[in-house]
Amino acid sequence: MAEERAVGTPVLRRLNTAAVLRAVRDCAPEPVRLAELVRLTGLTRPTVGQAVDGLVEAGWLQQHDPAAASPQGGRPAVRVSLRGRAAPVLGLDVGPHTVSAGIDDLAAHRLAAVRLPVGRTGAGRLLGVVDEAVGRALAEAGLGADEIAAVVVATPGIVDPASGRILLAPSVPGWTSVNLSEHLRGRFGCPVQVENDANLAALAVAGERSGAGTLLAVQWGERLGAGVVIGGRLHRGTGSAGEIGFIRPPGDVPDTGDGRGPLERAIGAEAITERARRAARDRPGTALQAGGLDAAAVFAAAAAGDEAAVRVVDEVAASFAQAIAPAVLVLAPDAVVIGGGVARAGSVLLTAITRHLGRLTLTPPVVEFSGLAEDTVLTGALRLALDEVWGRLPV
Amino acid sequence: MAEERAVGTPVLRRLNTAAVLRAVRDCAPEPVRLAELVRLTGLTRPTVGQAVDGLVEAGWLQQHDPAAASPQGGRPAVRVSLRGRAAPVLGLDVGPHTVSAGIDDLAAHRLAAVRLPVGRTGAGRLLGVVDEAVGRALAEAGLGADEIAAVVVATPGIVDPASGRILLAPSVPGWTSVNLSEHLRGRFGCPVQVENDANLAALAVAGERSGAGTLLAVQWGERLGAGVVIGGRLHRGTGSAGEIGFIRPPGDVPDTGDGRGPLERAIGAEAITERARRAARDRPGTALQAGGLDAAAVFAAAAAGDEAAVRVVDEVAASFAQAIAPAVLVLAPDAVVIGGGVARAGSVLLTAITRHLGRLTLTPPVVEFSGLAEDTVLTGALRLALDEVWGRLPV
Repeated sequence: MAEERAVGTPVLRRLNTAAVLRAVRDCAPEPVRLAELVRLTGLTRPTVGQAVDGLVEAGWLQQHDPAAASPQGGRPAVRVSLRGRAAPVLGLDVGPHTVSAGIDDLAAHRLAAVRLPVGRTGAGRLLGVVDEAVGRALAEAGLGADEIAAVVVATPGIVDPASGRILLAPSVPGWTSVNLSEHLRGRFGCPVQVENDANLAALAVAGERSGAGTLLAVQWGERLGAGVVIGGRLHRGTGSAGEIGFIRPPGDVPDTGDGRGPLERAIGAEAITERARRAARDRPGTALQAGGLDAAAVFAAAAAGDEAAVRVVDEVAASFAQAIAPAVLVLAPDAVVIGGGVARAGSVLLTAITRHLGRLTLTPPVVEFSGLAEDTVLTGALRLALDEVWGRLPV
Repeated sequence: MAEERAVGTPVLRRLNTAAVLRAVRDCAPEPVRLAELVRLTGLTRPTVGQAVDGLVEAGWLQQHDPAAASPQGGRPAVRVSLRGRAAPVLGLDVGPHTVSAGIDDLAAHRLAAVRLPVGRTGAGRLLGVVDEAVGRALAEAGLGADEIAAVVVATPGIVDPASGRILLAPSVPGWTSVNLSEHLRGRFGCPVQVENDANLAALAVAGERSGAGTLLAVQWGERLGAGVVIGGRLHRGTGSAGEIGFIRPPGDVPDTGDGRGPLERAIGAEAITERARRAARDRPGTALQAGGLDAAAVFAAAAAGDEAAVRVVDEVAASFAQAIAPAVLVLAPDAVVIGGGVARAGSVLLTAITRHLGRLTLTPPVVEFSGLAEDTVLTGALRLALDEVWGRLPV
């Protein structure tokens, strides 16, 4: 302790310590002088000193040796910075085809990143790949499982926020019968949180945008889902918020019996390809070829002005806009940000969606593609894990 | 000051004062002893004493004379309570047919309530009734305009949250050209906030439910709108959140050219009556009579088992459920609470809506009628005004 007597009550000391820790984080990775912390927190010098001492003792901060006397010739200033390895976090993105694992330190520096393909399908096999990815990430970071401060796992499907149980996951057969959170809790000594992948992608997208407004972040590829972020925080509602794949678009959408929602069946990447195939059959002169078509080819042909392709893209954009318009009216988001495979479609899809939403809503949101790549979901998982750690104060 | 030396920094003193004030409010209307405040806030006795002294001096708290020695024969305990008239707030509900004004004190006791009919239509006439209602409410409470600490005004239409300007208000001709907030700011010396009426009704409904979840509170009569409350706070989005009247239901809805939205034109109280008239024409044997029909009569006939009436109610319920289902999927609310004239429909409508939403969503919310009566919007306005005052701390 820097002072003989503790300043304030336990509650206040806790608040002061949190304020000092956050101020040091905001300055990271630069070490920061105590005088600067006094300015940033509005706390007195003795209060800051006491908080810093406690944080250094608890291993959250590291003290830097005064390098030299200050230019004014005064006493060399003590500087402190985050001790990153004090509370590293692990994120997992468990998909039907790939499992990614990453470890970040407290200052959000990536200590490890592992990406493993999932060969055969099935829940048991997938759980094995999860274990392997975790093991490799820990080895790469040189950490033991007991050193990890928080784990967040992204999974497709609907997750019960209270228990972490997966309630519905059409894309992974048997996945709902596996208790993923319990399995991981057995390995780690820290909180383990299981979260829907589109929700975590939404958090990552919100972090990129750094605005405080309302965001509908859509993941649109073979799967179709969304996450809602309001004021930088994930909106879960009763747990399944953002499940736009289950919106019922106008017209008849045959049930494929695989548990996928009607809108996903109508405008997922697979459906876009199928629509293009039909268009190619009906119009032999189109640039759309019946063989080797995928969603990317459709968007490319539309961008080049092919009439049939433009019509397919417009149909898809109209269905998407009609489906989400009621939610846009109720939520009034600042932006609809689209990620996933379809985000590579280019401006032809974006322009069409913007036009249709403008017609269907009162204050149309900005519609844009997410700049984030295939590690968006993992980034969101690590972000939530760090938030969890920062929410727990080391006092 | 109770102590010679102020405890803590200015920032901490502010936080402490806020904690003490909120603790006193939570105990209201009962006066509370300082020892109890120490227990409730976790602050030390000198800190609580200092905060109480400051609050009494600023006029927010009143000190009660120690009534008698305590049963144990010790020193009589000082007790404090809110000084209600320290910061009274004024709420207004400005509708095309009625203007209501109310004044609450800091402890949410109603000091005045006035309700005036609006004879002729038109923005100028309406503004005159507003002024009259304000004057009468102030007189009833025995207060001057300069004693009011916050004003919140409910209006139909879409309000720009930044400027308080009314951007769209189909039900009051000329209302968008009146600068209501500027007009009232000229009369009061305090913050004046203009807010959409459905939003304020939502706040009132959320207050009744006292849950911390997500709520879609629908106002459904001649007008159709909704407010979204998340964790006890109004969700505004970019400003126009909750405008369900503008959702486009399936099928063709002729534009009536009066600025009302498609869903409002399809299932507002007027449209329900019109649907019943058509049903009565097509089926002469029905209990629905072509003359003297209104929405209430339709619901009564359906409750009595009249086949044509049941069909009309089911159509209306299906249209409502289909329209809001995408928003329910995205928001995952705990409850959809319906207020306004249609809330008198009884269980026949509620049952049908619940059935259709169950079919269209993943985790269907509870659907129920609001227990609040015609002063719901005014209650919400006063609630927001009190929140505004509590958000400003007297230090």
